Amino acid sequence: MSSSILVVGSVAFDSVKTPFGEAEDVLGGSATYFSVSASFFSKVRVVAVVGSDFSDDHASIFKRHNIDTSGLVRADGRTFRWKGEYGFDLNEAHTLDTQLNVFETFRPDLPEDYRDAEYVFLGNIDPQLQAEVLDQVRQPRVVACDTMNFWISGKLEALKKTLGRVDILVINDGETRMLGGEANLVQAANNVRAMGPRVLIVKRGEYGVLMFNEDSVFAAPAFPLEEVFDPTGAGDSFAGGFMGHLAASDSLDDSTFRRAIVYGSVMASFDVEEFSLKGLSKLTKTEIEGRFGQFQKLTHFDAL
Amino acid sequence: MSSSILVVGSVAFDSVKTPFGEAEDVLGGSATYFSVSASFFSKVRVVAVVGSDFSDDHASIFKRHNIDTSGLVRADGRTFRWKGEYGFDLNEAHTLDTQLNVFETFRPDLPEDYRDAEYVFLGNIDPQLQAEVLDQVRQPRVVACDTMNFWISGKLEALKKTLGRVDILVINDGETRMLGGEANLVQAANNVRAMGPRVLIVKRGEYGVLMFNEDSVFAAPAFPLEEVFDPTGAGDSFAGGFMGHLAASDSLDDSTFRRAIVYGSVMASFDVEEFSLKGLSKLTKTEIEGRFGQFQKLTHFDAL
Repeated sequence: MSSSILVVGSVAFDSVKTPFGEAEDVLGGSATYFSVSASFFSKVRVVAVVGSDFSDDHASIFKRHNIDTSGLVRADGRTFRWKGEYGFDLNEAHTLDTQLNVFETFRPDLPEDYRDAEYVFLGNIDPQLQAEVLDQVRQPRVVACDTMNFWISGKLEALKKTLGRVDILVINDGETRMLGGEANLVQAANNVRAMGPRVLIVKRGEYGVLMFNEDSVFAAPAFPLEEVFDPTGAGDSFAGGFMGHLAASDSLDDSTFRRAIVYGSVMASFDVEEFSLKGLSKLTKTEIEGRFGQFQKLTHFDAL
Repeated sequence: MSSSILVVGSVAFDSVKTPFGEAEDVLGGSATYFSVSASFFSKVRVVAVVGSDFSDDHASIFKRHNIDTSGLVRADGRTFRWKGEYGFDLNEAHTLDTQLNVFETFRPDLPEDYRDAEYVFLGNIDPQLQAEVLDQVRQPRVVACDTMNFWISGKLEALKKTLGRVDILVINDGETRMLGGEANLVQAANNVRAMGPRVLIVKRGEYGVLMFNEDSVFAAPAFPLEEVFDPTGAGDSFAGGFMGHLAASDSLDDSTFRRAIVYGSVMASFDVEEFSLKGLSKLTKTEIEGRFGQFQKLTHFDAL
């Protein structure tokens, strides 16, 4: 049976412009993308904060996916806002504006029944907040964590403390080189793993994912798509599919991890095909399994 | 039994600087890297031109690998020279100087016994010269071709004529987008394939390779290396391993093509580990098969 996943991260209103269109104040945020993606595999519990501008209509997507929102705090003020733009290469977001709003004073306080969580995902927020969430979880089986250049340069000591308590770190290649202090990705990955995480997952956008652990490296391509509309949330959709499969399989061997990487890549590929959460929210299990099969065809080769 | 491969391209003296060292006037060129790489799989015949500064010592590497150099013309003047530099990302060469020298007036004239070649690789040279080589080959079974942005922008009409006679095109992702006129790689690949090549192989440097054909896409990662010293020749080493395996297997089905992509990636990974041809020239078949096995471990996953 499937164990439940606890995620802490942001719920946000995003304004996004890509060469293919734009969307204003649409629901987004790391906890949102992660939880909708993971919900196809496992029960999910969210810890986050929203403002008084967060309506029942906004809440409906969580309900529809059976996501536990008892840890979603409603505070006075406006919800976190992010405004960004993508160029034609779609690999890098250019942040135009960030408004922390209710996030500025947020301190996570976990509902009692969240504290037994076995699978924990610490979305990309202040590493001190990530640590405070961990403090409240009794005996997590797997802790995964995301972070970004902003925390690597601004809160390195706090981040290192958090990393010492983390099993899996999920970051992009630029962040791996920055945190590991090496231009060569394999050497940088070794240095990052020496900070605590047993497993390092390096996201490379349209080029896919590399997973480093003690004694193996696994490479998965991104699914080649004819239409990529909006890369927002791809990393969190990936993490959601990845953690979702881990929690659903209740196994931590190498082949489960590899399969989880592919399920994560499947979810990211659906996410980027449409704006905001549209690509994920209407999916079916059959479509997910279908694309998993396409990933097998995409990567398979035989020895003679 | 293995069929022989005909390659036309450059034999050059390269001066290369990377963050890890430099080398001056070392043997290089597309035909050189290709033929040494392919020689581990199949008999290779070279068509190229060198100058009077090309010594017996330079010729010895071809001899050592049983490469047929009866199509290697010695002209008065200096051998083609290329000078380039790589930054820390190692993905892109910055050309500092190119001296065509004897290449300026080169017209390929194939020795009689070259004209029955079944497998032909047209290295990255003027598309008109590529066509002149093809004119002299009686009934090629497979024609593969490389090109670059310089010919795409400067000799597009000649290039399109050559592409109409080619089965397999091997170019990088930037060139695919440029030639296909689309930012989206899948759409660009469709457009390029409509110009003639049944198979398009897109090289993505440290991110590996995508192969597009009628009804399937294959993605292979680059081998993650702790030490990359000199990317010069990686693309031609790839093409050599790829064509070498095709010629050795004498089969053109999808699984042979996929295996050939992996052998190409294996050869490129050995090439970049050392300066000039050092990484390739001392290899053994056992080492090549060993790294092929590592590629399987790197990419393999099972469905549940």
